[in-house]
Amino acid sequence: MKSEEIISSNFAKTPAPPYYAVIFTANRTAEDKGYSKMAEHMEELAKQQPGFLGIESVENNDGFEITVSYWDSEESIRAWKAHMEHQVAQKQGRKLWYEHYEIRIAKVERAYNMQTSTLQFAKSRYI
Amino acid sequence: MKSEEIISSNFAKTPAPPYYAVIFTANRTAEDKGYSKMAEHMEELAKQQPGFLGIESVENNDGFEITVSYWDSEESIRAWKAHMEHQVAQKQGRKLWYEHYEIRIAKVERAYNMQTSTLQFAKSRYI
Repeated sequence: MKSEEIISSNFAKTPAPPYYAVIFTANRTAEDKGYSKMAEHMEELAKQQPGFLGIESVENNDGFEITVSYWDSEESIRAWKAHMEHQVAQKQGRKLWYEHYEIRIAKVERAYNMQTSTLQFAKSRYI
Repeated sequence: MKSEEIISSNFAKTPAPPYYAVIFTANRTAEDKGYSKMAEHMEELAKQQPGFLGIESVENNDGFEITVSYWDSEESIRAWKAHMEHQVAQKQGRKLWYEHYEIRIAKVERAYNMQTSTLQFAKSRYI
Protein backbone atom coordinates (compact mmCIF):
# COMPACT_ATOMS: atom_id res chain seq x y z
CA MET A 1 0.00 0.00 0.00
CA LYS A 2 1.07 3.55 -0.63
CA SER A 3 1.48 5.94 2.27
CA GLU A 4 -1.80 7.71 1.48
CA GLU A 5 -3.72 4.43 1.49
CA ILE A 6 -2.20 3.32 4.79
CA ILE A 7 -3.20 6.61 6.36
CA SER A 8 -6.72 6.53 5.01
CA SER A 9 -7.44 2.95 6.03
CA ASN A 10 -6.37 3.13 9.68
CA PHE A 11 -6.72 6.71 10.85
CA ALA A 12 -9.88 8.61 11.67
CA LYS A 13 -10.22 11.88 9.78
CA THR A 14 -11.39 14.13 12.59
CA PRO A 15 -12.12 17.86 12.43
CA ALA A 16 -10.32 20.49 14.51
CA PRO A 17 -10.95 20.08 18.27
CA PRO A 18 -12.98 20.23 20.38
CA TYR A 19 -14.82 16.93 19.89
CA TYR A 20 -15.28 13.77 21.94
CA ALA A 21 -13.51 10.41 22.13
CA VAL A 22 -14.76 7.13 23.55
CA ILE A 23 -11.70 5.11 24.57
CA PHE A 24 -12.65 1.43 24.78
CA THR A 25 -9.97 -0.99 26.04
CA ALA A 26 -10.85 -4.67 26.38
CA ASN A 27 -9.60 -8.19 26.86
CA ARG A 28 -11.52 -10.55 24.61
CA THR A 29 -12.44 -14.09 25.53
CA ALA A 30 -10.73 -16.89 23.64
CA GLU A 31 -13.53 -17.84 21.25
CA ASP A 32 -15.23 -15.82 18.54
CA LYS A 33 -18.83 -16.79 19.38
CA GLY A 34 -20.25 -14.43 16.77
CA TYR A 35 -18.01 -11.53 17.81
CA SER A 36 -16.40 -10.73 14.45
CA LYS A 37 -19.72 -10.56 12.63
CA MET A 38 -21.29 -8.39 15.31
CA ALA A 39 -18.23 -6.11 15.58
CA GLU A 40 -18.34 -5.50 11.84
CA HIS A 41 -22.07 -4.77 11.95
CA MET A 42 -21.67 -2.43 14.93
CA GLU A 43 -18.93 -0.47 13.18
CA GLU A 44 -21.15 -0.05 10.12
CA LEU A 45 -24.07 0.98 12.33
CA ALA A 46 -21.94 3.44 14.34
CA LYS A 47 -20.84 5.14 11.12
CA GLN A 48 -24.49 5.87 10.31
CA GLN A 49 -25.20 7.58 13.64
CA PRO A 50 -25.59 11.35 13.96
CA GLY A 51 -22.40 12.97 15.25
CA PHE A 52 -20.07 10.06 14.39
CA LEU A 53 -16.67 11.42 13.30
CA GLY A 54 -14.44 8.35 12.97
CA ILE A 55 -13.02 5.20 14.55
CA GLU A 56 -9.57 3.70 15.16
CA SER A 57 -9.21 0.13 16.35
CA VAL A 58 -6.43 -2.40 17.04
CA GLU A 59 -6.49 -5.91 18.46
CA ASN A 60 -3.36 -7.96 19.07
CA ASN A 61 -2.89 -11.73 19.01
CA ASP A 62 -3.55 -12.00 22.75
CA GLY A 63 -7.05 -10.56 22.32
CA PHE A 64 -6.28 -7.18 23.84
CA GLU A 65 -8.17 -4.47 21.98
CA ILE A 66 -8.17 -0.68 21.94
CA THR A 67 -10.91 1.04 19.97
CA VAL A 68 -11.30 4.80 19.97
CA SER A 69 -14.41 6.28 18.38
CA TYR A 70 -14.83 10.01 17.84
CA TRP A 71 -18.06 11.98 18.18
CA ASP A 72 -19.19 15.57 17.89
CA SER A 73 -20.81 15.70 21.34
CA GLU A 74 -21.69 13.87 24.54
CA GLU A 75 -25.28 13.73 23.31
CA SER A 76 -24.28 11.73 20.23
CA ILE A 77 -22.33 9.31 22.42
CA ARG A 78 -25.29 8.77 24.74
CA ALA A 79 -27.66 8.27 21.81
CA TRP A 80 -25.36 5.62 20.30
CA LYS A 81 -25.02 3.87 23.66
CA ALA A 82 -28.81 3.74 23.96
CA HIS A 83 -29.36 2.52 20.37
CA MET A 84 -31.46 -0.67 20.49
CA GLU A 85 -29.18 -2.89 18.39
CA HIS A 86 -26.11 -1.57 20.20
CA GLN A 87 -27.73 -2.40 23.55
CA VAL A 88 -28.11 -6.02 22.45
CA ALA A 89 -24.46 -6.12 21.33
CA GLN A 90 -23.32 -4.62 24.66
CA LYS A 91 -25.19 -7.29 26.61
CA GLN A 92 -23.68 -10.04 24.44
CA GLY A 93 -20.27 -8.45 24.93
CA ARG A 94 -20.53 -8.67 28.70
CA LYS A 95 -21.80 -12.25 28.57
CA LEU A 96 -19.67 -13.78 25.81
CA TRP A 97 -16.95 -11.70 24.22
CA TYR A 98 -15.12 -9.79 26.91
CA GLU A 99 -13.24 -10.80 30.05
CA HIS A 100 -13.00 -7.18 31.01
CA TYR A 101 -13.36 -3.75 29.46
CA GLU A 102 -12.85 -0.13 30.43
CA ILE A 103 -14.64 2.80 28.80
CA ARG A 104 -13.52 6.39 29.12
CA ILE A 105 -15.34 9.37 27.65
CA ALA A 106 -12.98 12.25 26.96
CA LYS A 107 -13.11 15.67 25.36
CA VAL A 108 -10.36 16.12 22.77
CA GLU A 109 -8.91 19.57 23.37
CA ARG A 110 -5.99 19.62 20.95
CA ALA A 111 -4.55 17.40 18.25
CA TYR A 112 -1.55 17.22 15.96
CA ASN A 113 0.18 14.67 13.73
CA MET A 114 3.57 13.68 12.38
CA GLN A 115 3.60 16.38 9.72
CA THR A 116 2.77 19.09 12.24
CA SER A 117 5.40 17.75 14.65
CA THR A 118 8.09 17.80 11.99
CA LEU A 119 7.25 21.40 11.15
CA GLN A 120 7.24 22.34 14.81
CA PHE A 121 10.54 20.58 15.35
CA ALA A 122 12.07 22.48 12.44
CA LYS A 123 10.92 25.72 14.03
CA SER A 124 12.19 24.60 17.45
CA ARG A 125 8.75 24.89 18.89
CA TYR A 126 7.91 21.81 20.90
CA ILE A 127 4.43 22.44 22.27
CA MET B 1 -3.19 -16.34 33.31
CA LYS B 2 -5.98 -15.79 35.77
CA SER B 3 -8.55 -13.10 35.10
CA GLU B 4 -6.99 -10.77 37.69
CA GLU B 5 -3.58 -11.06 36.07
CA ILE B 6 -4.97 -10.37 32.60
CA ILE B 7 -6.66 -7.25 33.91
CA SER B 8 -3.61 -5.99 35.77
CA SER B 9 -1.18 -6.54 32.88
CA ASN B 10 -3.11 -4.73 30.16
CA PHE B 11 -5.30 -2.11 31.78
CA ALA B 12 -4.28 1.20 33.32
CA LYS B 13 -5.49 1.67 36.87
CA THR B 14 -6.68 5.24 36.68
CA PRO B 15 -8.32 7.30 39.43
CA ALA B 16 -11.80 8.78 39.22
CA PRO B 17 -12.10 11.45 36.47
CA PRO B 18 -11.22 14.12 35.61
CA TYR B 19 -7.74 13.38 34.29
CA TYR B 20 -6.05 13.54 30.88
CA ALA B 21 -5.43 11.05 28.08
CA VAL B 22 -2.90 11.22 25.26
CA ILE B 23 -4.27 9.13 22.39
CA PHE B 24 -1.40 8.14 20.09
CA THR B 25 -2.32 6.25 16.90
CA ALA B 26 0.45 5.28 14.49
CA ASN B 27 1.48 3.24 11.49
CA ARG B 28 4.94 1.85 12.07
CA THR B 29 7.52 1.37 9.34
CA ALA B 30 8.40 -2.21 8.39
CA GLU B 31 11.72 -2.54 10.21
CA ASP B 32 12.52 -2.36 13.92
CA LYS B 33 15.63 -0.10 13.63
CA GLY B 34 15.96 0.12 17.41
CA TYR B 35 12.27 0.82 17.97
CA SER B 36 11.49 -2.00 20.43
CA LYS B 37 14.37 -1.11 22.72
CA MET B 38 13.53 2.59 22.66
CA ALA B 39 9.80 1.98 23.15
CA GLU B 40 10.50 -0.12 26.23
CA HIS B 41 12.86 2.53 27.62
CA MET B 42 10.35 5.32 26.95
CA GLU B 43 7.59 3.43 28.74
CA GLU B 44 9.84 2.95 31.78
CA LEU B 45 10.82 6.62 31.68
CA ALA B 46 7.21 7.80 31.30
CA LYS B 47 6.23 5.81 34.39
CA GLN B 48 8.75 7.80 36.40
CA GLN B 49 7.38 11.20 35.37
CA PRO B 50 5.33 13.39 37.72
CA GLY B 51 1.62 13.05 37.02
CA PHE B 52 1.83 9.75 35.09
CA LEU B 53 -1.27 7.63 35.81
CA GLY B 54 -1.02 4.66 33.46
CA ILE B 55 -0.64 3.40 29.90
CA GLU B 56 -2.50 1.04 27.55
CA SER B 57 -0.95 -0.05 24.27
CA VAL B 58 -1.72 -2.42 21.39
CA GLU B 59 0.04 -3.07 18.10
CA ASN B 60 -1.26 -5.49 15.49
CA ASN B 61 0.66 -7.56 12.94
CA ASP B 62 0.31 -4.84 10.29
CA GLY B 63 2.20 -2.36 12.49
CA PHE B 64 -0.81 -0.25 13.41
CA GLU B 65 -0.51 0.91 17.00
CA ILE B 66 -2.76 2.64 19.51
CA THR B 67 -1.19 3.77 22.77
CA VAL B 68 -3.14 5.74 25.35
CA SER B 69 -1.26 7.23 28.27
CA TYR B 70 -3.04 8.86 31.21
CA TRP B 71 -1.87 11.92 33.12
CA ASP B 72 -3.08 14.06 35.99
CA SER B 73 -2.87 17.35 34.07
CA GLU B 74 -1.97 19.12 30.85
CA GLU B 75 1.16 20.41 32.59
CA SER B 76 2.42 16.86 33.18
CA ILE B 77 1.81 16.01 29.52
CA ARG B 78 3.74 19.07 28.32
CA ALA B 79 6.62 18.34 30.69
CA TRP B 80 6.87 14.76 29.41
CA LYS B 81 6.76 15.94 25.78
CA ALA B 82 9.61 18.34 26.49
CA HIS B 83 11.73 15.77 28.39
CA MET B 84 15.19 15.62 26.81
CA GLU B 85 15.35 11.87 26.21
CA HIS B 86 11.78 11.82 24.98
CA GLN B 87 12.59 14.59 22.50
CA VAL B 88 15.33 12.44 21.01
CA ALA B 89 12.93 9.50 20.76
CA GLN B 90 10.30 11.67 19.07
CA LYS B 91 12.78 12.83 16.46
CA GLN B 92 13.88 9.24 15.80
CA GLY B 93 10.22 8.25 15.57
CA ARG B 94 9.53 10.78 12.85
CA LYS B 95 12.68 9.80 10.93
CA LEU B 96 12.72 6.03 11.29
CA TRP B 97 9.85 4.29 13.03
CA TYR B 98 6.59 5.85 11.90
CA GLU B 99 4.94 6.31 8.52
CA HIS B 100 2.33 8.46 10.16
CA TYR B 101 0.97 9.25 13.60
CA GLU B 102 -1.84 11.25 15.14
CA ILE B 103 -1.80 12.60 18.69
CA ARG B 104 -4.89 13.79 20.51
CA ILE B 105 -4.90 15.29 23.99
CA ALA B 106 -8.21 14.75 25.73
CA LYS B 107 -9.76 15.37 29.14
CA VAL B 108 -11.39 12.22 30.51
CA GLU B 109 -14.70 13.33 31.94
CA ARG B 110 -16.29 10.02 32.91
CA ALA B 111 -15.33 6.35 33.00
CA TYR B 112 -16.87 2.97 33.70
CA ASN B 113 -16.04 -0.68 33.13
CA MET B 114 -17.65 -4.05 32.52
CA GLN B 115 -18.58 -4.56 36.16
CA THR B 116 -20.24 -1.15 36.38
CA SER B 117 -22.07 -1.76 33.08
CA THR B 118 -23.45 -5.08 34.29
CA LEU B 119 -24.74 -3.45 37.47
CA GLN B 120 -26.26 -0.62 35.47
CA PHE B 121 -27.86 -3.04 33.07
CA ALA B 122 -29.38 -4.97 35.98
CA LYS B 123 -30.83 -1.73 37.26
CA SER B 124 -32.03 -0.78 33.76
CA ARG B 125 -29.99 2.39 33.82
CA TYR B 126 -28.02 2.74 30.62
CA ILE B 127 -26.14 5.98 31.10
